[in-house]
Amino acid sequence: MNYKTLFSEDVSAFRSSPVREILKKVDISKLYYFSGGHPSPETFPLDRLAALTEKVVAKYGGKVLQYGDTRGQAELREALARRFDIKADSIQITSSSQQGIDVCARILLDPGDVVLCENPSYLGALNSFRSYRAELVGVDLTPSFEASKKREEQLERLLAAGKKIKFFYVIPDFQNPSGQTLSLAQRSELVSLAERYDFMIVEDSPYRELRYEGESVGSIYSLCPERTIHLGSFSKIFAPGLRLGWMVAPQDVLQAVFVCKQSLDLCPGVLNQYLALEFLESGELDSNLKKSLELYRGKRDMLLSLLEKYMPEGVSWTRPEGGLFLFVSLPENMDATALFPVAIEKGVAYVPGSYFYADDSHRNTMRLSFSYMENERMEAGVKLLASLLAETQGKQL
Amino acid sequence: MNYKTLFSEDVSAFRSSPVREILKKVDISKLYYFSGGHPSPETFPLDRLAALTEKVVAKYGGKVLQYGDTRGQAELREALARRFDIKADSIQITSSSQQGIDVCARILLDPGDVVLCENPSYLGALNSFRSYRAELVGVDLTPSFEASKKREEQLERLLAAGKKIKFFYVIPDFQNPSGQTLSLAQRSELVSLAERYDFMIVEDSPYRELRYEGESVGSIYSLCPERTIHLGSFSKIFAPGLRLGWMVAPQDVLQAVFVCKQSLDLCPGVLNQYLALEFLESGELDSNLKKSLELYRGKRDMLLSLLEKYMPEGVSWTRPEGGLFLFVSLPENMDATALFPVAIEKGVAYVPGSYFYADDSHRNTMRLSFSYMENERMEAGVKLLASLLAETQGKQL
Repeated sequence: MNYKTLFSEDVSAFRSSPVREILKKVDISKLYYFSGGHPSPETFPLDRLAALTEKVVAKYGGKVLQYGDTRGQAELREALARRFDIKADSIQITSSSQQGIDVCARILLDPGDVVLCENPSYLGALNSFRSYRAELVGVDLTPSFEASKKREEQLERLLAAGKKIKFFYVIPDFQNPSGQTLSLAQRSELVSLAERYDFMIVEDSPYRELRYEGESVGSIYSLCPERTIHLGSFSKIFAPGLRLGWMVAPQDVLQAVFVCKQSLDLCPGVLNQYLALEFLESGELDSNLKKSLELYRGKRDMLLSLLEKYMPEGVSWTRPEGGLFLFVSLPENMDATALFPVAIEKGVAYVPGSYFYADDSHRNTMRLSFSYMENERMEAGVKLLASLLAETQGKQL
Repeated sequence: MNYKTLFSEDVSAFRSSPVREILKKVDISKLYYFSGGHPSPETFPLDRLAALTEKVVAKYGGKVLQYGDTRGQAELREALARRFDIKADSIQITSSSQQGIDVCARILLDPGDVVLCENPSYLGALNSFRSYRAELVGVDLTPSFEASKKREEQLERLLAAGKKIKFFYVIPDFQNPSGQTLSLAQRSELVSLAERYDFMIVEDSPYRELRYEGESVGSIYSLCPERTIHLGSFSKIFAPGLRLGWMVAPQDVLQAVFVCKQSLDLCPGVLNQYLALEFLESGELDSNLKKSLELYRGKRDMLLSLLEKYMPEGVSWTRPEGGLFLFVSLPENMDATALFPVAIEKGVAYVPGSYFYADDSHRNTMRLSFSYMENERMEAGVKLLASLLAETQGKQL
């Protein structure tokens, strides 16, 4: 039978992650794996899991296996409220911060609406917005007078064309994929734009607590709570396998989110919330995080020095102060997107940078993750990638 | 600021569960609680949870806390495939069967499309379909010649009006709220209708394994796999707090579901999937289920005999062979919807039947759940409800 005639119009706008499609066919464990935002398994408190479970069963009993509050369990919302010095009733627990992204799209986007985003930006969010048939517009947040003028012209053009700008999706801390962090001035500029052009800001901040050097910059939410939906995640500070995140937002937004969440999945996983609560309240999360920061700092430094050592001339990269990623720029005539299947075949995986651009441009870029690769394999991986690039560059010149 | 102008059109179609709104203000533990589809906490394998966790950590290591497969972990899909004698690649694991419902709506419904449903039907599904601005049409599945003729006329009228009928949402086993089970003849008739009028069937079957007497009827999926999306759930056979369900569907549908699931939440909870797998594979799920069936059979029998003993004249109810609910009809001049806040105030909670009708009709009905009420409080609860009904009935006559 023909299912196509039954599908909703959204289905034609769905885009599968191209990385997953290609990686589906290979054994990832055999690759030098610089793709993917996977945390290092070394950061998982595996040996604590059974004890945590025993504790939450003893403390909370049958509640941990029953249906829970649609907003998330009160105890966890209160613990997060204390951690971030906000109010518990401004928090919605989500079944992953990816769900937070999807819920923002669902409650804010109609087909044809505009979502502004950094260029590049997180692929999984762009695909979610695309699936609601929104128009993605990449905006350059460079803090210069010229860039600022260009931004305003760009927004004015959108309004003149009758477009509705609903929100700016931004990853201010150790961005995925660039690894870069927005300065306070840039965050303030973004808030001014939101006020002037009357849109919301979706601040996606899963890496915020993974800072390896430098000073933390205030969240956009703290600058403008009435226009900001802030998304946080347990994936990088506890474990992605729990699928737990949180959203901080104005009351009117949370009310829409609440009803949406009811029909999405009734409530977030309850056992997982109590595990996260216990991990947080006992202080184990912070001591575990401290070890993770050391581990990741070391991995970042190792990758940076290996790139320095092996990369051919004309290749440059960002130097992130935190997070899991750095972004590599090849000479303009090189095509990391076309090279991707070849790299996989040779045994090394990155993510083509073009996948992170709203317009699929910048084919000479790639994202490298340093979180998942074992230290002892990293040098061989970088050497392989560097030699592949040198070889390809030679051919193209 | 005015958020309303930023919200998507869907938001105006969101309907919060009216039961939850009213119950939000009261202490449920003080009520005689015949509302809600909560499993009895006595069925939860609480004392096994830490041991199960220890086992899955030992067996699967870091995998249980890492990002997982978007389709769900292969081991769990294979275990379900063996249990139900189907293929693992026809299964998608969902973060609750409510998510299964929502995903069906997302991939199949555009605004104005028609969803057929039983009258009454599950409120949470109706609200999900409403949130996509679909039109709900209640269809009488009575297996009579007259009803069949009426069904065809009804569908022809919809087609003549230019409507697109996308699917029939049906709960064939121990329906929520009626407690009734569709006969094989009714299931076949539904399949014929789907073939003739070219729509899908969404078969929601969370209670299927909770049969206390009589013979199991073949699933609609087994009658017509190419037109059926079958939804199953761990909520009633393990624990709702895990938020785990599954979907069985044709490949073309699963492909759309896969991409949708990626953007919804990347993957289902991974630790929870391994807990469910271990519980299932060790045989504990079946031995636990056996005890649950005895418990629930006893609770159902107790509620039935208490209704018989205390309910005033003119009140009737269904006699379910399984599941968690039965459905009560009051004399036509009575209004269980209007009575609901009064009942809550007096200390007894049911769900007004009208909430389960696509057109909010049948205000003289109510759903009673026998799963959650402690046995020792059930008699006092039924007495209170019966006296409230007798009193109200007296006033209205």
